[in-house]
Amino acid sequence: MPAIEEYIKIINEELVTRIISAQKTPRNLYKPIEYVLESGGKRVRAVLALMASNLYTDDISKVIGPAIGVEIFHNFTLMHDDIMDNALIRRGKATVHKKWDNNTAILSGDAMMILAWQYIAETEEKHLKKVIDEFNKVSIEVCHGQQMDMDLESAFFDDDMVSVPNYLEMIRLKTSVLLASSLKIGAIIGGANETDTETLYQIGLNIGLAFQIQDDYLDSFGDMASFGKKIGGDIIEGKKTFLTTKTKELADSFIWNDFLNTISTNSMHQDLRIQKIKELYDNVGAKAETEKTIDSYIIKAIELLQELKIEPDKKEIFRSFIESLQCRKK
Amino acid sequence: MPAIEEYIKIINEELVTRIISAQKTPRNLYKPIEYVLESGGKRVRAVLALMASNLYTDDISKVIGPAIGVEIFHNFTLMHDDIMDNALIRRGKATVHKKWDNNTAILSGDAMMILAWQYIAETEEKHLKKVIDEFNKVSIEVCHGQQMDMDLESAFFDDDMVSVPNYLEMIRLKTSVLLASSLKIGAIIGGANETDTETLYQIGLNIGLAFQIQDDYLDSFGDMASFGKKIGGDIIEGKKTFLTTKTKELADSFIWNDFLNTISTNSMHQDLRIQKIKELYDNVGAKAETEKTIDSYIIKAIELLQELKIEPDKKEIFRSFIESLQCRKK
Repeated sequence: MPAIEEYIKIINEELVTRIISAQKTPRNLYKPIEYVLESGGKRVRAVLALMASNLYTDDISKVIGPAIGVEIFHNFTLMHDDIMDNALIRRGKATVHKKWDNNTAILSGDAMMILAWQYIAETEEKHLKKVIDEFNKVSIEVCHGQQMDMDLESAFFDDDMVSVPNYLEMIRLKTSVLLASSLKIGAIIGGANETDTETLYQIGLNIGLAFQIQDDYLDSFGDMASFGKKIGGDIIEGKKTFLTTKTKELADSFIWNDFLNTISTNSMHQDLRIQKIKELYDNVGAKAETEKTIDSYIIKAIELLQELKIEPDKKEIFRSFIESLQCRKK
Repeated sequence: MPAIEEYIKIINEELVTRIISAQKTPRNLYKPIEYVLESGGKRVRAVLALMASNLYTDDISKVIGPAIGVEIFHNFTLMHDDIMDNALIRRGKATVHKKWDNNTAILSGDAMMILAWQYIAETEEKHLKKVIDEFNKVSIEVCHGQQMDMDLESAFFDDDMVSVPNYLEMIRLKTSVLLASSLKIGAIIGGANETDTETLYQIGLNIGLAFQIQDDYLDSFGDMASFGKKIGGDIIEGKKTFLTTKTKELADSFIWNDFLNTISTNSMHQDLRIQKIKELYDNVGAKAETEKTIDSYIIKAIELLQELKIEPDKKEIFRSFIESLQCRKK
C-alpha cells in the first residue's frame, strides 16, 4: 500500500487533469469550482476511499472516480455552508460568495454537486446500484446535519434541543457519515465482504466523531500555531459545541447561569471572556470529559480495525493514518 | 393510454404520499419542499416520462419513481433560480426565499436535488446505468443553461454575446433538454428501441424550444387573462428574449438605436414603452419571425412523432398533448 501522500497526489493529479486545467465552459460557472478545488485541503474523504479499496485490491484505478466524487461533494457542501454561515475565509482564501457573490456560490455549488454524481456514476456496473444507494443516503444525511446545525445555532442555550445527544447526532450527520461512506464505497469497489464493509463504515463514524469533537476542543484549548486560527472563536460566536453541551449537562444551575451570562455578555473584554469560559469548562469537568470522549472514539475505531479480515501490515498503515489525523491535538 | 389528467393524478398522489404528507424530518428542511411541491404546476416533465414509457408498455409502475425524480429536479432548479433572479412570486405564492430566507431556499433546494437522485435511482437495475448517465448529463446542462442566462442578463444588448444563436442555445440548455431527457428516460424504462428513444429526445428538444419562445412571445403579445401575468414584464425588465435578439438581427442601426433608447429609458411611461417596443417588434418583422419559429418547432416535433414505431392511436394522444401545450398561444 502506498503512503498517504501518494494517494493525495493521485487525487490532485486527477482533479487538475479533469477539472482544474480542463477549462470547462461556461467559464463563469467553472472558475469558482477550479478556485475551490485548487486550494487544496487534505482530501481526507478521497484518501479514505482509496485506502479502503486498497485494503482489498492492488488495483485502485476503479475507485479513483468515485473517490473524487465524495471529495467534490464535500467541497460543494463547504461552498453552500459558507454562504449560510456567512464565512469569509476558507483554507486561507476568500470564500466563493465573498470573492464573487451569493448567486455564483449557489450555482457553482449546484454544478459541483452534479459533478460529484457524475464521478460516483463511474463506478463499474456490478457495484453501481450499491454505491449509488449509499451515496444518495449519505448525501441527504449531510443535508439533515446542516439543517440540525442551523437549528441548533438559532436556538438559545437554554432550549431543550441544545443537548449532548442532539449535538452528537448533528455532527454524526454533518461530518461523520461522509467519512464513513467514503470508506464503505471504497470497500465495496475494492471487493470487501459485507462484514468488513460495515466495520469500515463504523470505523469512519468513530473517526468522524473524534475529529469533530477534537476540532471543538482545539478551538478552545489548542494553540494558535498548530490549530491555524485564533483560539476562542467558538466561544465568542456562542457556538454550540461538545464543550458547551457537556457543560450544560454537568453544571449546577449556579454555574450554568454564570456560563450563560459570560457567553452572552458584551461588557467583558473578549480575551477575558474566553479565559473565563475555558476555566469554567475545566472546573465543571467538561474539558476532561471531552478529552475522554475523543480518546474513546479513537480507541473504538482502532479496536474495530482489528476485526477486519486484512493483512496485519495494512492494518498498521491504516492505524497510523488515523493517528496522524489525531496529532493535531498536541 | 390514459388521459393526461390521469398521469397528473398519479404523480400528485405519489408526491403526497411519499413527500408532502410524509412529515419528514428535520421539519425546517422539508416544510419548504412540501410547500413547493403542493403548489402544483402542470407536472409536464413527469407526464412526459410516464407518457413516453406508456408508448411502449402498459405497465407504467416502473417509471413513476424516475418521473417524480425529473419533476423534483425541475422544482429544485426553480427554488434556486428564484433566489438568483430575486423572484417574489411562483405559481401565485411567495417564493421560498421570500417566505423563509435565502439560507432555507439554498439548503431545501439542495435536499430536493438529492431527493431527485434518490427517485431516479429507483430505476430497475437493467436500465440504471443508462438512466443515471442521461440524468447526470441533463442536470449539468440545465446548470450551464442557468449560467448562460445569467451571463446574457448581465450583458448589454450591444454585446456580441447577445444573439439569436446564443439565446437559442441558452433556452435549449435551460429548458429543452430536461423535457427531452424526461421523454428519453421514460422511453428507456418503457423498453423503446434506440432509434425511437433518440427520436423522442429530439421531439422533446423541439417542444421545449417552441414553448419557451412562445412564453417570450406571450409576455409581449398575449392577453393577461390567459397568460396569467401582466403583459410586457420582459420589456420593462429589459430581458433578453427571442423577440429582442431577433430584433437585433433584423433591425438597421437607426431602428436598433431607437430600440436601445426605448428599452433603457426611464423618462417614458411604462405602458407607452411596452407599446412602442411591441410596435418595433412588429415593424422590424421580429414578431412574425417569432410566430414562424414557434410553428416550425411544433411542426418538426409532430413530424418526428410520425417516425416512432408505435400504434397510430398512441401517436394521436401524444400529438394532442403537444397541441394542448400550444393552446396557451390563443
